[in-house]
This record gives sequence, C-alpha cells and structure tokens, in this order.
Amino acid sequence: MYMQKMTEQVVCTYDDPVVETKHGKLRGVKTQGTYIFRGIRYAEAKRFHFPTEVEPWEGVREAFQFGHVCCELNTPIPHDQYTVPHFFYPQNENCQYLNVWTQRLDKTAKRPVMVWLHGGGWFSGSSVELLAYDGENLSKTDDVVVVSINHRLNVLGYLDLSQYGEQYRDSANAGLGDLVMALKWIHENIAQFGGDPENVTIFGQSGGGGKVVALMQTPAADNYYQKAIIQSGGPTAQGRENTENARKVSQRCAQLILQYLRIAPENVEQVETVDWYDLAQATMNAIWTIQNREGGKVSWGPHPDGAYYLGHPLDYGWRQESLSKPMLVGSVLGEFSGNFNQKIGDGIKNKWDAAAIDTYRKEKFGEKADTMAKLFASAYPDRNPADVLFLDTGLRKGCLNFCRKRAQAGGPTWNWLFNLESPFNYGTMAWHNAEEPYVFRNSAYIEAQYIPVVSERLEDEMAGAWVQFARTGDPNFEKLPQWPKASADSVPTMCFDEVTDLRVDHDRTLMEAYPQPERKGFPGSGKMFAMFGVKPEE
Amino acid sequence: MYMQKMTEQVVCTYDDPVVETKHGKLRGVKTQGTYIFRGIRYAEAKRFHFPTEVEPWEGVREAFQFGHVCCELNTPIPHDQYTVPHFFYPQNENCQYLNVWTQRLDKTAKRPVMVWLHGGGWFSGSSVELLAYDGENLSKTDDVVVVSINHRLNVLGYLDLSQYGEQYRDSANAGLGDLVMALKWIHENIAQFGGDPENVTIFGQSGGGGKVVALMQTPAADNYYQKAIIQSGGPTAQGRENTENARKVSQRCAQLILQYLRIAPENVEQVETVDWYDLAQATMNAIWTIQNREGGKVSWGPHPDGAYYLGHPLDYGWRQESLSKPMLVGSVLGEFSGNFNQKIGDGIKNKWDAAAIDTYRKEKFGEKADTMAKLFASAYPDRNPADVLFLDTGLRKGCLNFCRKRAQAGGPTWNWLFNLESPFNYGTMAWHNAEEPYVFRNSAYIEAQYIPVVSERLEDEMAGAWVQFARTGDPNFEKLPQWPKASADSVPTMCFDEVTDLRVDHDRTLMEAYPQPERKGFPGSGKMFAMFGVKPEE
Repeated sequence: MYMQKMTEQVVCTYDDPVVETKHGKLRGVKTQGTYIFRGIRYAEAKRFHFPTEVEPWEGVREAFQFGHVCCELNTPIPHDQYTVPHFFYPQNENCQYLNVWTQRLDKTAKRPVMVWLHGGGWFSGSSVELLAYDGENLSKTDDVVVVSINHRLNVLGYLDLSQYGEQYRDSANAGLGDLVMALKWIHENIAQFGGDPENVTIFGQSGGGGKVVALMQTPAADNYYQKAIIQSGGPTAQGRENTENARKVSQRCAQLILQYLRIAPENVEQVETVDWYDLAQATMNAIWTIQNREGGKVSWGPHPDGAYYLGHPLDYGWRQESLSKPMLVGSVLGEFSGNFNQKIGDGIKNKWDAAAIDTYRKEKFGEKADTMAKLFASAYPDRNPADVLFLDTGLRKGCLNFCRKRAQAGGPTWNWLFNLESPFNYGTMAWHNAEEPYVFRNSAYIEAQYIPVVSERLEDEMAGAWVQFARTGDPNFEKLPQWPKASADSVPTMCFDEVTDLRVDHDRTLMEAYPQPERKGFPGSGKMFAMFGVKPEE
Repeated sequence: MYMQKMTEQVVCTYDDPVVETKHGKLRGVKTQGTYIFRGIRYAEAKRFHFPTEVEPWEGVREAFQFGHVCCELNTPIPHDQYTVPHFFYPQNENCQYLNVWTQRLDKTAKRPVMVWLHGGGWFSGSSVELLAYDGENLSKTDDVVVVSINHRLNVLGYLDLSQYGEQYRDSANAGLGDLVMALKWIHENIAQFGGDPENVTIFGQSGGGGKVVALMQTPAADNYYQKAIIQSGGPTAQGRENTENARKVSQRCAQLILQYLRIAPENVEQVETVDWYDLAQATMNAIWTIQNREGGKVSWGPHPDGAYYLGHPLDYGWRQESLSKPMLVGSVLGEFSGNFNQKIGDGIKNKWDAAAIDTYRKEKFGEKADTMAKLFASAYPDRNPADVLFLDTGLRKGCLNFCRKRAQAGGPTWNWLFNLESPFNYGTMAWHNAEEPYVFRNSAYIEAQYIPVVSERLEDEMAGAWVQFARTGDPNFEKLPQWPKASADSVPTMCFDEVTDLRVDHDRTLMEAYPQPERKGFPGSGKMFAMFGVKPEE
C-alpha cells in the first residue's frame, strides 16, 4: 500500500495538505501529485450498537496512516500470497475508518467518486487487505476520487442480540450500519476532496459485491450513491439469508456466547465490554457447538428485518429506488475452480496432449464429456480445451441469472467476464480476485499477473470502462467494442482477455449443461485456521 | 515487500527458477532480473527446544511466498506507520524461514552475502516487518546476495525452563539457536544461490544489532560469517544480561506460567502443546505479576550460560574469534529522542526563533544551557541550534564506547552516524530506523524520507559503503572521504547527511556533557498494547 517508487518529495507537514470536513480539519499527504488521506474516522460505535457520528474536534487531525482494520476470528495461512498479495494490518474493533485518494482538493471539481467495499465475506478482510486495492493509480490516471472503507465484521457486526432487549434491536446489522455511515460521511464531505457527492459509484468484489447488493436493499443508503458494480460476489445470497433459519442460528449463537462467557441474560451489557479475545474464543466455541452438535451453520452477514435491511432482491424482491441505478455485474473465468485451486490430473494443463485432456474430461464429465467439449469449443474456440475442466459455474451462473432478472425488472445492467490467463506456472486461469489489479490499475505490482503490453492495455480497457461507467452510468467508451445492456432473454458479455470482445450468451448452454459441483463450504476455508483452538464447553 | 513496478514478465513456473539445496529442490521467482526465494525453511523446532535440521524432501518445494513470522505478545498500534512503514504478516511459532535475493544461481559466482537480522528487540518484528527490509534493490544494484531471517522471539525463544529438567537446558537460548541454524543453512547452501559461503556479513538494526553482537559471542556461529555491522543496537546489553537477576527472573516467569496454566512441574511437557493463546495469556499474566507484585522486570533475550552463549563482550569479555572480524558500528542522530518521539515546546522546531530556542534550552539544560549550545555549535555548526534538544545519547554514547573498547582489544571497527533530516513536518530528525531504507536502497518507497537527488546520492554512499565492507572488510571506497578505523583514544565518525563528511571525536565532549535522560522503559512501549488484557490470578 506504499507502492509508488517516488521521484518527487512528498508533502506532509503540520498544515499541508489540510481539508476541512464537517467535524474538523484533517491533514493527509500529497505524493506524486495525488492527495491521500488515510485512516479517516467516519463514525464511532459501541460494540453491538449502530454507529454514531464522530465528535467534532479542534485543530488538525492526522490522516496519513491507515486506521485499524476490524478484528477477524481466523488468521489466514499465507497460501495465496503470491497470486493475491495481502497487506495485513493491526486489528481493532474500533475500525470505522476510510481512505481517500484524489487529484484535487477543490470543492468545485466534482469528480466521480468510486467507493470500494472490500471482500472477505462479511467476516474478514479490510480496505487495505490486498495490494490490488491501492487507489493511487486509479485516481491519478483517471482523475477520480477513490475511497475505501473498513467496517465491522463477523460477530462484531452481525450477532443478533435482539432477544435481550430493545437496545440490541440493530446488533445483527451493526456492520451494515457502518457502511451506511461511511456513505453518509462521503456524501457530506467528499466535495472538499474534489468529489461529486451526487455521483458516487459503489463497487466491491466477493463479499464486497455482496455488500453492494445489500446496500441497494437498505433504504437508508439510497441517497448516497448513484451507480453500482459487483465483481465475483453478490448475485445470490449464497443460501444464507433466504432461509428462515439464518436469524435463528444467529440468535442461538448469541445464547451460546453468553453462556460460555458466563454472562446471565439480565447482565447482557457485560458482553459489550469483555475482552475481544474472550469474546472471540466464546464465539469460536459457539460456532463449533452449532455446527457439530446442533446441525446448524453460522454465516455472518446482515439480517433482513423488513425495515433497515430488506434482504437479497432475488429472495425479497427488487426495489425501484435501486433498480433505477445502473449496474455492472461480472465474475472471472476460474474463480475457485481454476487450476490454482483445483487439482486435476498430473502435471500442467497447458502441457497436456489431446489424449490426456480427453481422459480427464471423461473422468470429470462421464458420458457428457463429448458434449462438454463441444459446448466449450463453441463458447471459447480460442482457449485450451483443457480449460473446460476448470470453469467457475457458481458465480457465472449467478451473474447471468442476476442480469436477466434485473433487466426483466427494468434495471440497466451490463455483464462482463474476466478471462485473462496468468503466466504463473505455465498458465493459471483467472482466480477469485484476479480482475482487481486491472480495475485499480495495479497489475504491474502483482508478480503472478503482470504481462507487459497486455496488462497495460487491459487496464486501460477495464479501469477505463469502470471509470466511464462511474462518470456517465454507461461503460461504453472508445476502447471497447459496443457493449449492450442485458435483457430478460439475452446477456451480452464483455469478455476481458488478451483480445477483449463482446459475446452474446456465448456460454449459456455450456453453463446449463455443466454439472453442479459438490458444495464444500466456503471456498478457501480449508486454508484458514482458527485463531483459537476450539474448546467445547459442556 | 512487493514494491517493484514491473516492466518484465516474472518467471515463476513449476521448474523455473529452481535451486537444489542440501535437503531438496526449491523454486522461487525471477522478477526484473532478480531471483527471489521467499519463505525457505532452514530448520524445524519443537517449542522450547533447540532447532534441528529440516527433513530432506523429494520433488520441488515452493519458495515464492514469505513464511510465517514469529508470534508476538503485543499488537502494535500503527503509530509510526508513516515514518516506518510496516508489512505485517501472519504469525505462527513455526517460523524458521529465511528469504534470499540474488542476481545469479551460479555456484561459481561467489558474491558477497549480506544476512539481515531484524529489529524489535528479541520480542517482536520479522524479516519482512518493514518495507525498508526488502532486499531486491540492494541485491540488484550491488550484485550481492541478501538474506533475511525469521526466528523465535519472546517467551517462545528465551524462557528458561532449565529448572524442570535436562531436556530444557537450552530453552533460554532457543531463539538464538534458530539464528545459528539459519547461518549454518546459509553456509551450506548459499553457493547454489550465487553466494560466497566464506564471505558472509551479518547486519542488523536495533534488536538486530543486539543479535549480531550476541552471535559474535556464540562459538557455534564462528565459522558462518566473516564481518558484522550493527545499526542502532547492540553496543550495550541494555542492562539486561549483566545483572545476575536476569536468569532468575526468567526462571520465575517460567514458574508463574506453569502455575497459571495449571501445569504441575511433573507434567511440564504439557507446556509444549498448550494453545499459543493460552501460553501467551499466561505469559502476560506472569509478566504483570513479576513487574507489579515482585519488583522484577522481564526482558526477553538469550541468557549467558558460559558455553553456548557467552554474554555481551563489555560484560563478559571479548573473544579473539570475533575480534578478528571487522565491524561497522553506528546509530542515528535522533533515535528515540528526536522531534518525532519527543515533544518539546510549542510548534515546530525549524520555525522557532533564537529566543524560543534559548528558552527551551534553558528549560532542558538549566545552567548548562550555554555550554550545551556552544558544544553543539562546535559539533554541528551547520545544524539548527534547536537540534541540541533532541539528540540521542544512549545509543551514540554506547557506540562510541563500544568502538573505543573494541579497538583497544584489537578489533577493526569503523564508526558512523546517520544525520539526514526528513522533510516530514517541516523537518524531522533521524528517528530510530531512519537509516535502514538508505542501507537497502529503498528510500524512494518511504514517503516520509524521500528527497530527490539527495536520497539517491546518500543511498549510493551508505549502501555502497556497506557493500564495499561486505566485499572487502573495509568500508572505504571512492564515494566517501577517507574513513579511518576507531582507536582506543579516538573515534572518527562518518556522518551521513546531505553532505557526508568524516568528523573525529566531534561530539565527544557534547555527549559527555549531555544530561542523562530519565529511563522510561523500552522506547515505544507506550505505543504498544497488550494483545490480552492482563488478568492477575491470585
């Protein structure tokens, strides 16, 4: 997150650069022409409560270091640090911070604002978790204001304590409340940073895509953004919200947590002040009990309550207030099924001969092998036939369905797919997260992804389309082929690749014919380990 | 730690680049011409035991992601992220990993090897903790092999369990044992990475300087390195080892930890398998008890045992085996006393007028104020007179003393001081860590430090001198004035600054006259917070 090799001296002094916000003055840095304000507090919150506005202050507050990121229950093993380089950061539940990158501090500039919502489900990650998220290059090249946000995650953001009293009515949506407060802060303050408060695009990947869709179903956020982009996340509720069970499980989790912390219901307030590590340990134990003894499944995220958060549109219906906002919707070719994540056969897919591919295809598809080969060749005549073994279906099918349904309901929606293969290991299909460096113009910093000339061109196309969309509500611009909106019947897909082209329903039959993968829990969860050993309490 | 903006495609495939080590094959990456092998396992270890060699393996192991860093007892608040940018990384006690940057994988190349020992006392930090530690630029510009090491810290590396049996004889030096094993690995394998196993320079800053000096007093390491550099650390044992009390305190700590974990002495082996978080919590409680109830002070680090580790040379005597090795010894002007760490007066030191400086000088030095002003003007005629208020004395005096004593004993020793002021906040004196980006040629990545032209020149001087020393055992080269060794009577100091010059005993009287600062515990400790709340157990 400090990636630029500088050629100019940075400005960062007691009184320069300084911006006056609604609550007080902030000073950031000016580096290579870009103003960066890191770790701006946008709200305050007591544990398990909705956030409140920050208190006004005198003088000038520092905003040149990133703020704390939210505590996680798990510590990742650095298993994908090469493909998806992380920037880990100190954690604290007081994490309501955002970061701003901008080219000008001029109230009249009114540049488009792009607000990044990080991935990691609703349980992990941060605004600075990935090197790809650094906003400097995007802001500088395209003269936009980039904002990224930390907010409460996991038990801290979404535990349903409502059974213990009216004061916890909103605990199950507290982390979503953080996001709304961040958007409110942006609405009220971003003009001072050269941004247009009436032209805000929210965009996010994976869990961040889910957050974008959730905000579109949260009336309190309606006035704070005008456009939305989802990347490899959000097209379905992933089987969480649309069961009546979800809230019950969260409530059961709350009961067990109190029990393990030896807090009687009448003393429930104590749960607001116990040490985080004790709360985390009790939570891990509660999850263990629910999942191993009671047959439930704990899945963090906001809870539809019919008022603050209305639930996923495919389960609870589209809202006109959101439908009028244009959306970009897409995913990547391999996601969690590509040859980085999935082991098939021996050796290297790009060195297999036709016979080997045939063998593996038969192993995977059985008697449908020939059909799948033909459907794949028809959809992707330019690709290695081996790639049919490694296609993502979950997110791709979800996006196609989301696009069709939204178009049918009247929402302007464009679909895309990121297909560029990385040179890593003689060719690695686009993994979950692979498009992010291209959206942020940071691909030259990702060892596993950078391809000279190709990467620069593709950044110009993708970041260019994203920015064009943020500016105008339509991603069409001169560097891309004509890109029509999705309709109820048909989904044109912009396929970003070495040669980017538009294909219409090119993989529809392929996706419909593809066998349903076995559900193996949250992808990547096998690579996480619990921060705490689980110690079941009887 | 992934800082290069690339212009070439990285090579990282199943069989390229691959190196055959003593135990098996490793594959790394080749980026912009530099071969990087990250996260090489150099040893294995059971908790509280000396490390052992890694088991040989078949096939090719991956070495393109950094390995786990050692667990810490504290989580830092990001208070100095702007001045000293950190790269936080997942922690695990199985942390015996090292990283290699090199320009060639040619056994006959025999390039100088520079082995970096990170700072953070003996209780925190890692080989990748700071952006400044990235070895790519140093390796590339100067054609040297750079290695950096993780090893066990704090309770995991230095708890004295010897009272519980012969099997724990070495637990108090286990982390030092890791360092020795790393050097052994380098000795046995670095030729395959283009390095000269008979020309190894160990260098480290702060705690890393302490580790360099400790290794010089560890006979098992004697054959594994030929030169040594200490930066702002190591000239004294910091009052730890040279009290008889240190070992007693560590042993008391062990007793309390067992007690808090409810492990009876006859079941002591259980302490090897309890969850890390339980061990950490018990350790925090033990430290609390010792420091608040028993008047002791817990300070992690190796323990002189008269055999494996012989103790600091100023307390336990110089060893001829080490004295023959040339050393660079130095520190920086402000360290923990500069105007980044120490608040004096109102406003900004570089905007004070003469009257304000006079006032603050009188407040600090009382009737010695005029003397101090004169001594400072004589030592630093080119500096702002206000700077006398912010001088480091602890490390500077320590280095001067160390140089004189070592020279007297016959050891070739050169002294240096890093004085460059940063442009941050209208001028910030060189802080603890400030010289590191200049040694590693990474100053253009540190926003608070980069000064166009000046930084490049100073990198050429400092990194150039370090490399010349690593090559030849003498830091003199054409870009610097003549740099004589220290003698028992006199210490010539290379002052690295906007204009680098050699000064002989220039600040000796100034340092002798400077009042002793009040000792306030480990600098920066006020900015750390305990991972766990301490819960005293009665």
